[in-house]
Amino acid sequence: MLARTCLALALVLALPVHAADDAKKTPSAKDLLAKSTPDEWRTPDPANLVYMDLPQGRVIIELAQDWTPAHAANIRTLIREHYFDGTQVIRVQDNFVTQWGDADGDDKAKAKSLGTAKESLPAEFTRKGGKYPFTRLPDGDVYAPEVGFSDGFPVARDAKAGEAWITHCYGTVGVARDVGAETGNGSSLYAIIGQAPRNLDRNLAVAGKVLKGMEILSAYPRGGEPMGFYEKPEQRVTIKSVRLAADVPEAKRTPIQVLRTESKTFAAVIEAKRNRKDDFYTRPAGKIDLCNINVPVRDPSKKP
Amino acid sequence: MLARTCLALALVLALPVHAADDAKKTPSAKDLLAKSTPDEWRTPDPANLVYMDLPQGRVIIELAQDWTPAHAANIRTLIREHYFDGTQVIRVQDNFVTQWGDADGDDKAKAKSLGTAKESLPAEFTRKGGKYPFTRLPDGDVYAPEVGFSDGFPVARDAKAGEAWITHCYGTVGVARDVGAETGNGSSLYAIIGQAPRNLDRNLAVAGKVLKGMEILSAYPRGGEPMGFYEKPEQRVTIKSVRLAADVPEAKRTPIQVLRTESKTFAAVIEAKRNRKDDFYTRPAGKIDLCNINVPVRDPSKKP
Repeated sequence: MLARTCLALALVLALPVHAADDAKKTPSAKDLLAKSTPDEWRTPDPANLVYMDLPQGRVIIELAQDWTPAHAANIRTLIREHYFDGTQVIRVQDNFVTQWGDADGDDKAKAKSLGTAKESLPAEFTRKGGKYPFTRLPDGDVYAPEVGFSDGFPVARDAKAGEAWITHCYGTVGVARDVGAETGNGSSLYAIIGQAPRNLDRNLAVAGKVLKGMEILSAYPRGGEPMGFYEKPEQRVTIKSVRLAADVPEAKRTPIQVLRTESKTFAAVIEAKRNRKDDFYTRPAGKIDLCNINVPVRDPSKKP
Repeated sequence: MLARTCLALALVLALPVHAADDAKKTPSAKDLLAKSTPDEWRTPDPANLVYMDLPQGRVIIELAQDWTPAHAANIRTLIREHYFDGTQVIRVQDNFVTQWGDADGDDKAKAKSLGTAKESLPAEFTRKGGKYPFTRLPDGDVYAPEVGFSDGFPVARDAKAGEAWITHCYGTVGVARDVGAETGNGSSLYAIIGQAPRNLDRNLAVAGKVLKGMEILSAYPRGGEPMGFYEKPEQRVTIKSVRLAADVPEAKRTPIQVLRTESKTFAAVIEAKRNRKDDFYTRPAGKIDLCNINVPVRDPSKKP
């Protein structure tokens, strides 16, 4: 029997093909990235780079400094005062979010001190006016007038209203809050682990985006209580430590680079996915949705 | 400190509110379902209902008999001859698919016999012409001219081309295949566990949809090999058994009902999600994407 295991093989592997066939086929992302130039990659600012060390490995998050500066500052304070060390993954709701923070955060008597961090922050749900890079996608969006990428983040904008915001895509990290718009402070964060819940857009502050380690956050057992909270304290995973890359000696940092979302190679990667046609994909979609695009990340210490 | 754990509370819990506030607030799905009538729910045909028993529990899949009849028939044959018993979860690729089948399927010498099932099937990637129920969504779609629901399945259609197809949303079950369009036979299946990979639409046959148990399929550790294959055989989860509900004595079946996608209550659930406005959600999306809608399922033996 032939392989039934080849689903989407063409997505990942560059199959050896005759030169004559090459022209007809969409190049793979791997091939396109191999041809990228060094200046097409950026090294995130270590002051915006968060290492969250879990028993299963390291999750790396880039803070959205330019989009939610008050939240980025407060999260940096929490990290520098080691607030997150020993806090836990408290909630995993299938096809929605993995959330972490102080399991006793609801209980004033038991809640961990926020130290010098603020308890309340301005509701940075959208960005009003100002300048920012914007690489627009060509196929529209169900939710917003325009969507695209800005410095690696998936964003939507409404030019008429003069507003833009980071969208809730897979891997987006948001700030949990209570009912009041200003009740979020970054001490409890969530990562999107399912179909992009775009109805959260403009209702919550986005803290940043997971660059590495989503496969850890997405594979925790789902909680059995409403909203995916764990029934028993022992089901919670305890966070070993959360540090800023800037506070880790340079030699001990995890090497990471992100493909610039204004680069030619990123445009080519998107185009190849929009119009993928090869031996496996015979009917190209011809379109692509914002949250179907993964921004490539690489370890610059490894040869491509 | 106030709860940081209340993200999306309003999505799940009906908060007690003053009657005067009620009118301004979007009803919750829970409230809407509580008011549904018995005739708004359907009991899936047991001949199309698959019980896949894994060590972590039961996954229930509804076969898309009306959309991919040749595949449904072949999968029924495989199930009735106990083909799947002892096969394994062979691949979990983050934000993409969990795939199961014969780990040795690629190796002609070792592959499990398909019994009386067919090795090759017509490429039922789209449905041409014919009549089928279609509850159209109002907000458009990035990929297709029209999207909506048909008998519980998320579908797209292109009226001009006279074609319709089940879309690859979270929980959609597809038929893995080799490069050739007719190389799929249902002996290896995959479930979508991440952002809807709509570029698979019209390139693969959709076998059905997971009605229950997605939280099992979505939480397996991701495989470390390319495409999420597991490195070591011992990482694979072995399937205990796969049975058709029709072959299980009625008293031993898992009670399950699905909200009719042409019902008033389903329309109300969609509308409430499109325009959710309450104490937490202050800016309603005003729109909804096809794959953001979960078709409600219930256990009719439990009181609502």
